[in-house]
Amino acid sequence: MDLQAIVDDIVRELEPRLGEGKVADYIPELARIDPKQFGIAITTVEGQTYKAGDAETSFSIQSISKVFMLTLALGKAGEGVWNRVGREPSGSAFNSIVQLEHEHGIPRNPFINAGAIVVADMVLAGHAPREAIGEYLRFMRYVADDETLSIDEKVAQSEQKTGYRNFALANFMRGFGNLHHPVEHVLGVYFHQCALALSCVQLSHAGLYLAHRGTNPLTGFSVVSPKRARRINALMMMCGHYDGSGDFAFHVGLPGKSGVGGGILAVAPGKASIAVWSPGLNKVGNSALGSVALEMLATKTGWSVFGT
Amino acid sequence: MDLQAIVDDIVRELEPRLGEGKVADYIPELARIDPKQFGIAITTVEGQTYKAGDAETSFSIQSISKVFMLTLALGKAGEGVWNRVGREPSGSAFNSIVQLEHEHGIPRNPFINAGAIVVADMVLAGHAPREAIGEYLRFMRYVADDETLSIDEKVAQSEQKTGYRNFALANFMRGFGNLHHPVEHVLGVYFHQCALALSCVQLSHAGLYLAHRGTNPLTGFSVVSPKRARRINALMMMCGHYDGSGDFAFHVGLPGKSGVGGGILAVAPGKASIAVWSPGLNKVGNSALGSVALEMLATKTGWSVFGT
Amino acid sequence: MDLQAIVDDIVRELEPRLGEGKVADYIPELARIDPKQFGIAITTVEGQTYKAGDAETSFSIQSISKVFMLTLALGKAGEGVWNRVGREPSGSAFNSIVQLEHEHGIPRNPFINAGAIVVADMVLAGHAPREAIGEYLRFMRYVADDETLSIDEKVAQSEQKTGYRNFALANFMRGFGNLHHPVEHVLGVYFHQCALALSCVQLSHAGLYLAHRGTNPLTGFSVVSPKRARRINALMMMCGHYDGSGDFAFHVGLPGKSGVGGGILAVAPGKASIAVWSPGLNKVGNSALGSVALEMLATKTGWSVFGT
Amino acid sequence: MDLQAIVDDIVRELEPRLGEGKVADYIPELARIDPKQFGIAITTVEGQTYKAGDAETSFSIQSISKVFMLTLALGKAGEGVWNRVGREPSGSAFNSIVQLEHEHGIPRNPFINAGAIVVADMVLAGHAPREAIGEYLRFMRYVADDETLSIDEKVAQSEQKTGYRNFALANFMRGFGNLHHPVEHVLGVYFHQCALALSCVQLSHAGLYLAHRGTNPLTGFSVVSPKRARRINALMMMCGHYDGSGDFAFHVGLPGKSGVGGGILAVAPGKASIAVWSPGLNKVGNSALGSVALEMLATKTGWSVFGT
Repeated sequence: MDLQAIVDDIVRELEPRLGEGKVADYIPELARIDPKQFGIAITTVEGQTYKAGDAETSFSIQSISKVFMLTLALGKAGEGVWNRVGREPSGSAFNSIVQLEHEHGIPRNPFINAGAIVVADMVLAGHAPREAIGEYLRFMRYVADDETLSIDEKVAQSEQKTGYRNFALANFMRGFGNLHHPVEHVLGVYFHQCALALSCVQLSHAGLYLAHRGTNPLTGFSVVSPKRARRINALMMMCGHYDGSGDFAFHVGLPGKSGVGGGILAVAPGKASIAVWSPGLNKVGNSALGSVALEMLATKTGWSVFGT
Repeated sequence: MDLQAIVDDIVRELEPRLGEGKVADYIPELARIDPKQFGIAITTVEGQTYKAGDAETSFSIQSISKVFMLTLALGKAGEGVWNRVGREPSGSAFNSIVQLEHEHGIPRNPFINAGAIVVADMVLAGHAPREAIGEYLRFMRYVADDETLSIDEKVAQSEQKTGYRNFALANFMRGFGNLHHPVEHVLGVYFHQCALALSCVQLSHAGLYLAHRGTNPLTGFSVVSPKRARRINALMMMCGHYDGSGDFAFHVGLPGKSGVGGGILAVAPGKASIAVWSPGLNKVGNSALGSVALEMLATKTGWSVFGT
Repeated sequence: MDLQAIVDDIVRELEPRLGEGKVADYIPELARIDPKQFGIAITTVEGQTYKAGDAETSFSIQSISKVFMLTLALGKAGEGVWNRVGREPSGSAFNSIVQLEHEHGIPRNPFINAGAIVVADMVLAGHAPREAIGEYLRFMRYVADDETLSIDEKVAQSEQKTGYRNFALANFMRGFGNLHHPVEHVLGVYFHQCALALSCVQLSHAGLYLAHRGTNPLTGFSVVSPKRARRINALMMMCGHYDGSGDFAFHVGLPGKSGVGGGILAVAPGKASIAVWSPGLNKVGNSALGSVALEMLATKTGWSVFGT
Repeated sequence: MDLQAIVDDIVRELEPRLGEGKVADYIPELARIDPKQFGIAITTVEGQTYKAGDAETSFSIQSISKVFMLTLALGKAGEGVWNRVGREPSGSAFNSIVQLEHEHGIPRNPFINAGAIVVADMVLAGHAPREAIGEYLRFMRYVADDETLSIDEKVAQSEQKTGYRNFALANFMRGFGNLHHPVEHVLGVYFHQCALALSCVQLSHAGLYLAHRGTNPLTGFSVVSPKRARRINALMMMCGHYDGSGDFAFHVGLPGKSGVGGGILAVAPGKASIAVWSPGLNKVGNSALGSVALEMLATKTGWSVFGT
């Protein structure tokens, strides 16, 4: 299988569709991005990286950060994480508050905003926001094996100023006792984790441990146990694309996590970590061309976990 | 990998837990089943069947039938199926009507009751209920390669008399124009499809096409295309266990479909079709010991689709 | 106060607006009504009737019947009625099923469809539908003091054939054990009670006991105690116009009950019973011109219960 | 009618029940109140005040303030108020956020928390919180004709620190664009308006304009037009007791507004303004003994608006 040819083909086939979808406009800093961009990078468990298009351009990973923060929280709190956040698809939008009221402040899963805010609260674990953000950044540099990663402070500030819905979710859960730190601290961490800037190449490196039994084959660094890697993959499959998770499983068949910055991280267990990026979003808030690209990739490679 | 040893181990390990869970009591005929039973059967794509416990005892497949009826409906209506039923996890109980009201009579997916009732309406396709039931029974005999399969008329009658919630769902959707046949006809089909009696061995045969690119390797019969087999597997993963689908993916990591009769069909793509049965149900309505057994199996075999 | 001049004025002022609103089209028999009709009748507790417009034309009272059936049920079951139906505004549409699922089959109040179906079940009280319908008709003739009242069998049949939503509600509640008779029997009663045909004059007579401490001053017949009359009025105020009850209280300030046939019964406690009718409905399903007429009447008479 | 005898009777009859209900504990400052207190005061439109029990003890009026703030907002914004807040009962708890999500940030009515927060935003109208609070305090002193009224700063601070749910509601609505001032400013006003301390006697004076066509007969001050007074009364009837409004109408039959401090203001249009207070709350958050007292009063006086 010639993966370089495959990614080149995908870039070529998507060329005429560049600009499809709608760039997220509720975060002012993101609204300015040129929509006509697309990048893809595949890093195999053998350590080869294949890339095409704007694969080296940095973008805001946004909600993709939820996968890495969950990894961190599981390392700190172990399976106790699941006392404060569920593992089921939500059946509603990424920022819905309805379910929280019906289920007493316990978010459905760690990949909707409410759940990720609880996870950020766990990573805080009594520390100052600055320290928790530092820990996250060190962790990301470690899994990506790249000391140059940095957080875009402008994006973080931009979200801080306009993230009313997240303030609502956080205060709501704090009212139920499911946040242990001040709302401002927790959201400080949350907005900064989302504002990390990565390229497709960097993201495909960062996610590689999920494809390789919890260990990054590029560095040999062990991140999580094989069992935990499987479970994180399961969560990505079930809940990684908000209310479009079913569609993503149907069309692509790989665990994945999207962000409103237009990135998607997908995992082909035992085979590769894949990152795609294109800023235009579809109706449920996932990268329009990114989703299409991953469907093409799954078809061409036969990597769907649901059969060849 | 010695699969016979694995299934024997599972039966031995579960022996002390026989009787766990709660037998479904809302269908009088099912309420009488002896709860202290457990069976397991694995049929590999190479055509070998491994079985242990009560693997030859017939049980009511109930909602597992939804997988086969969906297969039939896709054969008739193709991707047009998705105009009348969604592909997303529901985030609510198997018989919830709330989502239907908010989403104008379009059920979330074909594996909750409302969705399966729409699918039964598609299979009816202008015919009399008797003919549709006949078609279903012929199809099941074909995929299981077993002419002895039959429907337990007593169970069907029992559900007909007490299935108020299903009558509510069907009338509700009919009010939205999403049922094309009389409610009594559609539910006649639905109650009969659920009342099919199969043993674990028979069920593992019937589901084998899903593990083997749409073709039953025992008979060579082609049932669906490889792509369609993948997609049905994806739907089973996302929606096969109602509001416990996330948990099943987390612990087992295989596409599966449960029924309130206590059966679960699981698919290890490219490897095997697995059927387990034990009547006691957990809180979300899936077989308690069946779920445990599949988690044990996935651990022992490394068959989770999310990594080894 | 010259009530005849007031009703004449109202008819004159509404003349140019005849035809406003939208005639209910989900009941085929009702869809054929000429929308350019308007009638009003006031019967005072002193026994005088003032009328104008199409005040002698019969129309289908539909949900206005819920007030009289509640009166009957309270006579049979006393305050025990409230174990099976609530007394709070629903905050949702007249035929919503969502609340029922969240509140275990107990409808919010007796004036939404679900609640009225439970009330019909109480009036059945072990009898055949024909007998319950007979009892209702006798009661209506008694309170209206008019032996000519009759049920429009065509309308009843029309609803029977297309009332899927009501079948859904009834089956749903039967599943929760909150209907004691077969769904077909209960809905048989319900569809017939709705199909009673009355003119504004007749309806203003029928409702007079609610304005006069539970006793019809025209006949001297005691229907309910003063306390029960007050309570029924309270329920009409709070729940009589579905999700437009707040607006009706705000603009009109009288207890009232509307029907999709375009009629509204309003009560000015201690003063009069008022009936208006015009087939066109507003967005929440209440007579558009009827609501306007009652606001005009309340303003001209100072009869609002909320102050002069 | 000897109103003094009536209030004395009520105090005597309730004596053995003092302490019923549960004092609001989510606001620390309120949790310390001695529950065994009860007061009642009636001020008639003729200007007589009748009082009994702890009628001169100050208590935190909490949500009763919503009536007065609505009066202020209507004075500033006129009927434009209704573009940003509805007039329908909510069918849910006082602090529910579910309806807001379904209805795009427009609260159901001005007497649930979300609605009152929008009203506070309207009263702010570009001013600093301190000025709006000052305006409110001046207004309250004016309607109560009592320059001694003051806000309990400790209670306001206490709510500020623990009012997560209100912060959630406010941020949520700000996200929908339905708050025009910073969340902290709006809630600063809201928490202070709730923290006003009044006795039953003072509260019965303050509400008297609602019973007397918008004008306080004690002072001759005109507060609102007769029409607006009627409409505010209608809103109190429909929405004044959260999800217990239906029950209050059923049992008492007067427009009223409760607060979690245990107070209730009730209005008998054309007759009197009534204030009761007892700290223990019933299940829906209204004063337990206060509700009982008003039912007794309505029965003894025949003041129910729904008939004698």
